[in-house]
Amino acid sequence: MIKVNGFAAHEPKGRLQKFQYELPEIGLEEVDIKVAYCGLCHSDLSMLNNDWDMTQFPFVPGHEIVGEVVNAGSRVKGIKVGDKVGLSWFSQSCMHCEQCMSGSQQLCASSEQTLVGRHGGFADTVRGHWSWVISLPGNMDLAKAGPLLCAGMTVFHPIILENVRAIDKVGVIGIGGLGHLAIKFLKHWGCEVVAFSSNKSKHDEIKSMGASRVVDSTNIEELQTVSGQLNFILNTAHVSLDWDTYISCLAPKGKLHTVGIIPEPMSIPSFSLINGQKSVAGSPGGGPALIKTMLDFCVRHNIYPITEEFAIENVNEAIKHLEDGKARYRIVLKV
Amino acid sequence: MIKVNGFAAHEPKGRLQKFQYELPEIGLEEVDIKVAYCGLCHSDLSMLNNDWDMTQFPFVPGHEIVGEVVNAGSRVKGIKVGDKVGLSWFSQSCMHCEQCMSGSQQLCASSEQTLVGRHGGFADTVRGHWSWVISLPGNMDLAKAGPLLCAGMTVFHPIILENVRAIDKVGVIGIGGLGHLAIKFLKHWGCEVVAFSSNKSKHDEIKSMGASRVVDSTNIEELQTVSGQLNFILNTAHVSLDWDTYISCLAPKGKLHTVGIIPEPMSIPSFSLINGQKSVAGSPGGGPALIKTMLDFCVRHNIYPITEEFAIENVNEAIKHLEDGKARYRIVLKV
Repeated sequence: MIKVNGFAAHEPKGRLQKFQYELPEIGLEEVDIKVAYCGLCHSDLSMLNNDWDMTQFPFVPGHEIVGEVVNAGSRVKGIKVGDKVGLSWFSQSCMHCEQCMSGSQQLCASSEQTLVGRHGGFADTVRGHWSWVISLPGNMDLAKAGPLLCAGMTVFHPIILENVRAIDKVGVIGIGGLGHLAIKFLKHWGCEVVAFSSNKSKHDEIKSMGASRVVDSTNIEELQTVSGQLNFILNTAHVSLDWDTYISCLAPKGKLHTVGIIPEPMSIPSFSLINGQKSVAGSPGGGPALIKTMLDFCVRHNIYPITEEFAIENVNEAIKHLEDGKARYRIVLKV
Repeated sequence: MIKVNGFAAHEPKGRLQKFQYELPEIGLEEVDIKVAYCGLCHSDLSMLNNDWDMTQFPFVPGHEIVGEVVNAGSRVKGIKVGDKVGLSWFSQSCMHCEQCMSGSQQLCASSEQTLVGRHGGFADTVRGHWSWVISLPGNMDLAKAGPLLCAGMTVFHPIILENVRAIDKVGVIGIGGLGHLAIKFLKHWGCEVVAFSSNKSKHDEIKSMGASRVVDSTNIEELQTVSGQLNFILNTAHVSLDWDTYISCLAPKGKLHTVGIIPEPMSIPSFSLINGQKSVAGSPGGGPALIKTMLDFCVRHNIYPITEEFAIENVNEAIKHLEDGKARYRIVLKV
C-alpha cells in the first residue's frame, strides 16, 4: 500500500482540497511516478464540472504529468526506476486488441483514462501501465513538458493524420493551450500559418508564435479574405462555429479537422464537401510511439508551450485563472 | 454552322419536345460527337426541374454520352474522327489552372458543364473540348458505357480518394443508379460489401450484384448490428439521414463519404469524429485520366450498369419511369 497526497474535489465544481488516499500493491506491469509538474487542461475543468457525466468524486484532476519513476513492477518494459517520464490522458490500454496491436493504443476500447474511475496527477504520486509511461528525451525542459503530452499530442496527431506538408497553407482556429502549440508545430513543419482568433489582445503575441497572419474570427469580411486558400484547418475551439464559412476558407481538396469538442453537432452542407472535394474529421491524441516521436521533434526544434507556473498549493487560484480566460497559454502546477 | 436535332424542355418540369438548334463553327480544340446512347441520370431531372437554380431553357438534358467523333478542330489532342468516345458532366476545363495542371480538371473553377448554359446529349450531336472527350476501350459495350462516365466515375473516385483496400469491410447507402455500380466496383476491389437499402424488393438482386449482406436501412435494430464494423461507407442517397448512426457503423478510423447531394446540412457530432478518429468527406467525379483508368478497369472485370433501354423518342416515358422510382438500375436512351 502506498499513501498518496493529492488535491481532490468532493463534488461537481467543488474547490480542491488536500486529500490522502492509498494505492494498492503495484501490479507486475505498472509504474509509479513521483510527480514533479502537472499541466492544467480545459479537460480537467470539464471533468471537475462533470460536464461529460463520467466524473467520480472525490476527484483528483491532472493528466499532463511529468515526473520520475520511483517504482516499477517486474514485467514493466522499456522503463526503469529513476527515469524521467510523462503520463497523459490514458494510463493503460489492453495491449492485445486490433488497435493496440497496430499502434493505435489511443483507440483501444478497454483503455483506462488517467482521470476516470481513478486519481490523476494533482498529487505527489500517480500510477500507470508501462505502455503509456513515456520516457522523456534527456535534454527536455521538465517544467514545460507536461502540456506537450496532452495538448501537444492532440494537435500534433492531426498534422500526421491529414498528411500536412511544408508546402501547405494552413489555419488554426482558437489560440489557447492547444492552438498556440499547433501554430508552433505547423510553423516548424514549414507551413504558412493563418491563425483565427476572436481575442484581439492576443494578435501580436500570436504572430510571435509563428503565424504569418491573424484573422479576427468575429469579422465575417476578414474571414472571407481567406476564402479558398487553406489546405488544412485545425479547430481547437470548444464552441459551435459557422463551419461552412471555414469550409469555404479551404482550397479544393482541403481538410477541416477538429480536436475541439463542440457542444452541438456540426452543421456541414454536403454540397460544400462534394464540390470542393473536401473533408471534415476529428481525432483524439496519438499512441505512445507517436508521443515519443513528437517529443523528439519538440527538443530538436525547441518547441515548448508558453506556460504560467503555479505551486500546487495554489491550484484553486490556477483553476480560476483558467476559468476566467486569462491563461497565457498553459498553466503548469509545480508539485 | 451545324444543325442539331435534340429534345428540349421549354420550362421547369416541362415535357421534352423535338427541338432544333445550331452549333457555331467548331473551335480549334473542340470535338463533335454523333450521339449513339445517352444515360438518364437523377441530375438530369434536377436540372429539368431547375432544382439548383441554374437551368437555362430551352433545356436539352443528357450528360452520360457515348458516340463517335464526326468532326475535330485542328488543335485537338489524342482524339480523331471515327473514334468511339464518351462525354459526361464536364465538357471543358481551362487546362492551365493549378487544378487542371495537377490532373484534377473536375475542380477547375472555370470549367464548362455539359448541361449548363449549353445543350446536352439528348440530341444527335454534342460538342466538347478534347480534354473531356474520353476514348473508350475498344472492346467496351457502347450500349451500357454511358452511365459509367458519370454515375460510375462518381462512385469510383471516392474508392481511390479514401484509399479503400481489398481487406476493408465497406458499406453503400442507397442502391440505385450510383449505388449498384459502387457495389460492383467494391466487390471487384476485393472488399466485403454491406448494402444499406430501404427497398426490400431489391434485396435479392442487390446480393447478386456482389453485396454479402443487405441491411434494411429503415430498421434501426438492423443498422445497429453493423456497429463499429465498416472501414468505409459511401452514401449515394440524396436524402437526409441519421448520419451519426452511420458514423457509429464505422470502425475506428472509418470514413463516411457522400456523393449524394443532401438537401439539408449534415448533422455531425464532433465527439463521434474525435473519439473514433473518423472523417466525413465528399467528392465530385474525377478527371479525364481517372475516367480512362476506370473504363479499363470496367472492361477487365466486365463491370457494367444494369440498364433499361428506351428509344430517345420515348424520353418522356423514360423520365416518368425514373421519377416513379421504377428504374432498375439505370436508364439509357438509344439515339
